[in-house]
Amino acid sequence: MRSFQAVRRRALLRSFAAPCAFQTTATNRLWKKCFSATPAAASKLAGLDPSKLTVTQTTTPKELMAAKDLVFGKTFTDHMLSIEWTAADGWHAPQIVPYQNLSLDPSACVFHYAFECFEGMKAYKDNKGQVRLFRPNKNMARLNKSSSRIALPTFDGEALTKLIGEFVKLDSRFIPDARGYSLYLRPTMIGTQKTLGVGPPGSALLFVIASPVGPYYPTGFKAISLEATDYAVRAWPGGVGDKKLGANYAPCVLPQLEAASRGFQQNLWLFGEEEYITEVGTMNLFVAMKNKETGQKELVTAPLDGTILEGVTRDSVLALARERLVPQGWAVAERKVRMAELAEAAQEGRLIEVFGAGTAAIVSPVRKISYRDQLVDCGLKEDEEAGEIALQMKNWIESIQYGDEEHPWSYIL
Amino acid sequence: MRSFQAVRRRALLRSFAAPCAFQTTATNRLWKKCFSATPAAASKLAGLDPSKLTVTQTTTPKELMAAKDLVFGKTFTDHMLSIEWTAADGWHAPQIVPYQNLSLDPSACVFHYAFECFEGMKAYKDNKGQVRLFRPNKNMARLNKSSSRIALPTFDGEALTKLIGEFVKLDSRFIPDARGYSLYLRPTMIGTQKTLGVGPPGSALLFVIASPVGPYYPTGFKAISLEATDYAVRAWPGGVGDKKLGANYAPCVLPQLEAASRGFQQNLWLFGEEEYITEVGTMNLFVAMKNKETGQKELVTAPLDGTILEGVTRDSVLALARERLVPQGWAVAERKVRMAELAEAAQEGRLIEVFGAGTAAIVSPVRKISYRDQLVDCGLKEDEEAGEIALQMKNWIESIQYGDEEHPWSYIL
Repeated sequence: MRSFQAVRRRALLRSFAAPCAFQTTATNRLWKKCFSATPAAASKLAGLDPSKLTVTQTTTPKELMAAKDLVFGKTFTDHMLSIEWTAADGWHAPQIVPYQNLSLDPSACVFHYAFECFEGMKAYKDNKGQVRLFRPNKNMARLNKSSSRIALPTFDGEALTKLIGEFVKLDSRFIPDARGYSLYLRPTMIGTQKTLGVGPPGSALLFVIASPVGPYYPTGFKAISLEATDYAVRAWPGGVGDKKLGANYAPCVLPQLEAASRGFQQNLWLFGEEEYITEVGTMNLFVAMKNKETGQKELVTAPLDGTILEGVTRDSVLALARERLVPQGWAVAERKVRMAELAEAAQEGRLIEVFGAGTAAIVSPVRKISYRDQLVDCGLKEDEEAGEIALQMKNWIESIQYGDEEHPWSYIL
Repeated sequence: MRSFQAVRRRALLRSFAAPCAFQTTATNRLWKKCFSATPAAASKLAGLDPSKLTVTQTTTPKELMAAKDLVFGKTFTDHMLSIEWTAADGWHAPQIVPYQNLSLDPSACVFHYAFECFEGMKAYKDNKGQVRLFRPNKNMARLNKSSSRIALPTFDGEALTKLIGEFVKLDSRFIPDARGYSLYLRPTMIGTQKTLGVGPPGSALLFVIASPVGPYYPTGFKAISLEATDYAVRAWPGGVGDKKLGANYAPCVLPQLEAASRGFQQNLWLFGEEEYITEVGTMNLFVAMKNKETGQKELVTAPLDGTILEGVTRDSVLALARERLVPQGWAVAERKVRMAELAEAAQEGRLIEVFGAGTAAIVSPVRKISYRDQLVDCGLKEDEEAGEIALQMKNWIESIQYGDEEHPWSYIL
């Protein structure tokens, strides 16, 4: 069946280079046959196998940087995890090798058609010196969703978690031993096929690099201010805005620069005529407000309708809110919120607090939102940099991440 | 001013790595000052300068492939054009070097956030042996629009055309000397910044590679059949579907595979509840039909509303139609056409022909479109592989490309 898979791939590639190759009845039959291949056929290709891992240690270990000098994603550890995939053979033997440049043909499809997806996750050192990951199964599941959406291969998430564990343990000296510090991990999958025909990549590379990072707010929370973007749209129903594809990121930079040029730290993405609040910069957004009719406190975020990234922190905030805030009388909802609804709540004194949620900052409190020549006040007092819910969420999640609270979300390596 | 630009860039980068760095009034003032920098400031950075070109010739020239064995975008010439850019210095000296792998840090932003855009253009040999480009100014203008949308640098289009000319002349032995053959050129710009912070790249690489290609339809036209895609959306208002970004391509492969799995060579992208016809695969689409009220023949394509790629072939077809078909009684329109309108025209015998338009094929005639369990017949007779307008357009455009007809669109190197 291996060769059958190879035929299928080759056929696909040829078809995109020259679509007309596929119009005879014979080739149509081939297509149908190819696509009726069962998953069993695919499984004959080699899966990701941690037992095949080889490790080549660096001969020039790096000096550790002073923790205070760490900049997000700028310095990396001694090694990287690297796993090739080909359509003919499946996943090759995983390798841990010294951190090094990738050498790729200039026709590689990652450079032309954005065959690339990634994850952001962190490794933490607990007070016993153990290294922990946070909900790695969520990142693995999302990376598989992302890769399959752009015709890149999928993989066994538990196998990759195990391999990441080996990598992190090897480079664990880079994880600073203090609260707020961690090792940011960047699993990335790229298409490496050397051809300009637009089609499913016949080869790919899955690699993981790691960057030691300090606390997002080194001197305590600093609330940010946002500019609501009404001239550009991040995502659309039927699009790929819910996947962690490279494609979703480059187009976001200009609106962020625009917002920054007017003194706002991030832009707020709205959607549609209704101006639904979707995301902030590259984070999910949470709004805490009192219900207009009932006065009940509500924690609200946009629903997963295909335009919202399925954030791991978003999911964690929702779960903790349902477990720990609902008993205190809060309602928790995934529903669409119009920007005008938020502005009205602010005006009527019902807006409690607003915060972004993502892996880098956990939560990021919002002070003001610029919207149609208004400056919407998001409920923080002047001398306050974070609201109560944001503070609680950060503490709850960090306690789990650093193992102060034993919790099934924390994964000890 | 050079260092000012550098400060601005560094500031931007820092801000995206840690947005909170930008909340003091002082930094807000810096932002404002930075963004009020005039283009004059930017112009102090080095521009693209063809006079600085250096050429390193290969010592291992490739053997030419037999023309009949050429596959689109699979084999490349001996050399490539390569030009680095940095935010501190602008464009570095252009280089023609032997075709070679790119060596990039695994944190380079092209691998993570799709900082990449490209062009497709061709060089043709005329019957005097002269090498010609087709409307290169259009490709240069579009590449600048694409790059600036994702915070990559812009460049002087005439300078790059000149450099491409030098490259093509050096490798002109790869251009097969026959009608339908050409050298496909792929100018590509990627962000090379080595950091995981999402922000404007501080460094970039502009490179051009070239692949000799044969005729799209080696044995004459072959009409293709399409499947209308109603479950995925290629582009949307306020998005980037009108730019030639890598980001627009990887997400298109799955719908194409879906269509292929049911025996259709390409998918047809519809948009919105109205199911407007937008593009076919990676081509623009033209519809020739008789007006329901007046019976006048109309050639129609989707307007440039931000969701349609501004195809050079699209523009050429429109211009030639206005010049040569309108005097014959045709109307030419850029307007939205609903899929139901096309199906109705087919049913009423008013649909004359349908064809895709793009650099690879020039025109690509369409036989049938699968749409809501109907199979819409696009007007070709059973033994016909192309309609009259598609045939005429291909001949007109090829005559200009190969220099049989002297025309300002043809650019002799």
